[in-house]
Amino acid sequence: MIVYKIGGNVINNPATLHEALDYVAAQVEPAILVHGGGRRANQLITEMGRQPVMVDGRRVTDHATLEIVTMVYAGSINKDIVAQLQARGSNAIGLSGADGNAILARKRPVGAIDYGFAGDVLGVNAPLLDGLLRLGLRPVLCPITHDAHGQLLNTNADTIANEVAKAMAALEHDVSLQYCFELPGVLRDINDHDSVIRTLNPDSYAAYREEGVISAGMIPKLDNAFAAIAAGVREVVIGSLSALRAGEGTRIHGA
Amino acid sequence: MIVYKIGGNVINNPATLHEALDYVAAQVEPAILVHGGGRRANQLITEMGRQPVMVDGRRVTDHATLEIVTMVYAGSINKDIVAQLQARGSNAIGLSGADGNAILARKRPVGAIDYGFAGDVLGVNAPLLDGLLRLGLRPVLCPITHDAHGQLLNTNADTIANEVAKAMAALEHDVSLQYCFELPGVLRDINDHDSVIRTLNPDSYAAYREEGVISAGMIPKLDNAFAAIAAGVREVVIGSLSALRAGEGTRIHGA
Repeated sequence: MIVYKIGGNVINNPATLHEALDYVAAQVEPAILVHGGGRRANQLITEMGRQPVMVDGRRVTDHATLEIVTMVYAGSINKDIVAQLQARGSNAIGLSGADGNAILARKRPVGAIDYGFAGDVLGVNAPLLDGLLRLGLRPVLCPITHDAHGQLLNTNADTIANEVAKAMAALEHDVSLQYCFELPGVLRDINDHDSVIRTLNPDSYAAYREEGVISAGMIPKLDNAFAAIAAGVREVVIGSLSALRAGEGTRIHGA
Repeated sequence: MIVYKIGGNVINNPATLHEALDYVAAQVEPAILVHGGGRRANQLITEMGRQPVMVDGRRVTDHATLEIVTMVYAGSINKDIVAQLQARGSNAIGLSGADGNAILARKRPVGAIDYGFAGDVLGVNAPLLDGLLRLGLRPVLCPITHDAHGQLLNTNADTIANEVAKAMAALEHDVSLQYCFELPGVLRDINDHDSVIRTLNPDSYAAYREEGVISAGMIPKLDNAFAAIAAGVREVVIGSLSALRAGEGTRIHGA
């Protein structure tokens, strides 16, 4: 089975989003799609006379911001994607982490920064996702989770995709995790889109890191990818839509 | 099984909504919950510098309004209800009509009035709802549907509840349809809350209509209720939360 993550930059451009949904709908394997947020939440925050607050690339989510991201991620983006997949004959079902208790999280503890209603994933309800797949459905997860005490939480979509892939692998699924983002893959040189590293295993990853050729921004993504491999996910592929479609991008696997 | 409809006036008051969710969560039978919209959509339309447009109690839904009602109904209201039911140990799963192709609709044809992206229900995917119930889930439907060509549509929640009850009865379920609204039931005298008509069957309904004691606003609701009974729904109950909880309200059944 395949777990796809499509990022905000893919969602922001309707043409790219439609191409990505064409690609997902064309796959015959069981699939789960996880989507990020994109720029609509910030637009809506601004339209409502507020200012988006980000620290280290993560959103500070106060009460009003939580309502807005819930509306945008679980409401408009999720339902638009589901309706577009349905139009392509793909039997999508949209979920937040609260739906069927799909993704349980806890409010991030307040440290140097108070991220507000940000959620760290505690667990994935893989039997639920498995039950939905057995009904012939394609779960489409948005980055909103819950704490099982009635509180919704804003959660990183990359983390959700990673945790979902690991949980499905633990249920004996053969899982390919595919991250669709704006670059053709992990680059040796951030300014050269032809410098894609085609494969990475733990040894070559360690060597590239020692050489210092992998950009700092990619390191958390790749650390998570290797954690997924260690937890039984067969492969992680990172690339742009056209790279993924061509079987290219960066392919990460075990030793 | 029970199909509950909770109306906008119940949702507008957090205390009433929480009581209604306590009531739904306490039921042991399989259940489907359908919720309406409430005033949050109009607030948000106004906050975004627009004017809500209603004709004969129905919303005129242009493109921007569709985005807002999708965000409010499928996003914040639906996910808040699901998270609150999860907190009560009830395994809720929120759905729009696009999710799993739960409710197929068509854009209302333009007549004297162009209602925009308003949807009239064409069909309910009862096998999907049945499959979710068999997984131990409680579907929570919001009043957003789709046309299977990628278009979301704004749809009357009473109609959805009625069509869902009929479709589940056609699958041989023993269905009780319960409308929770702001009045204690169907009243003989709209100004006297003690004048609840306790039971209605087709004969007594015809007699009350001849007498002219049933208010004009209730007649479409009751016509739909009798259509549901004719289609195999065992009973329809209409009343306030406290009436339903006490086994009171107006109970509608066959001859």
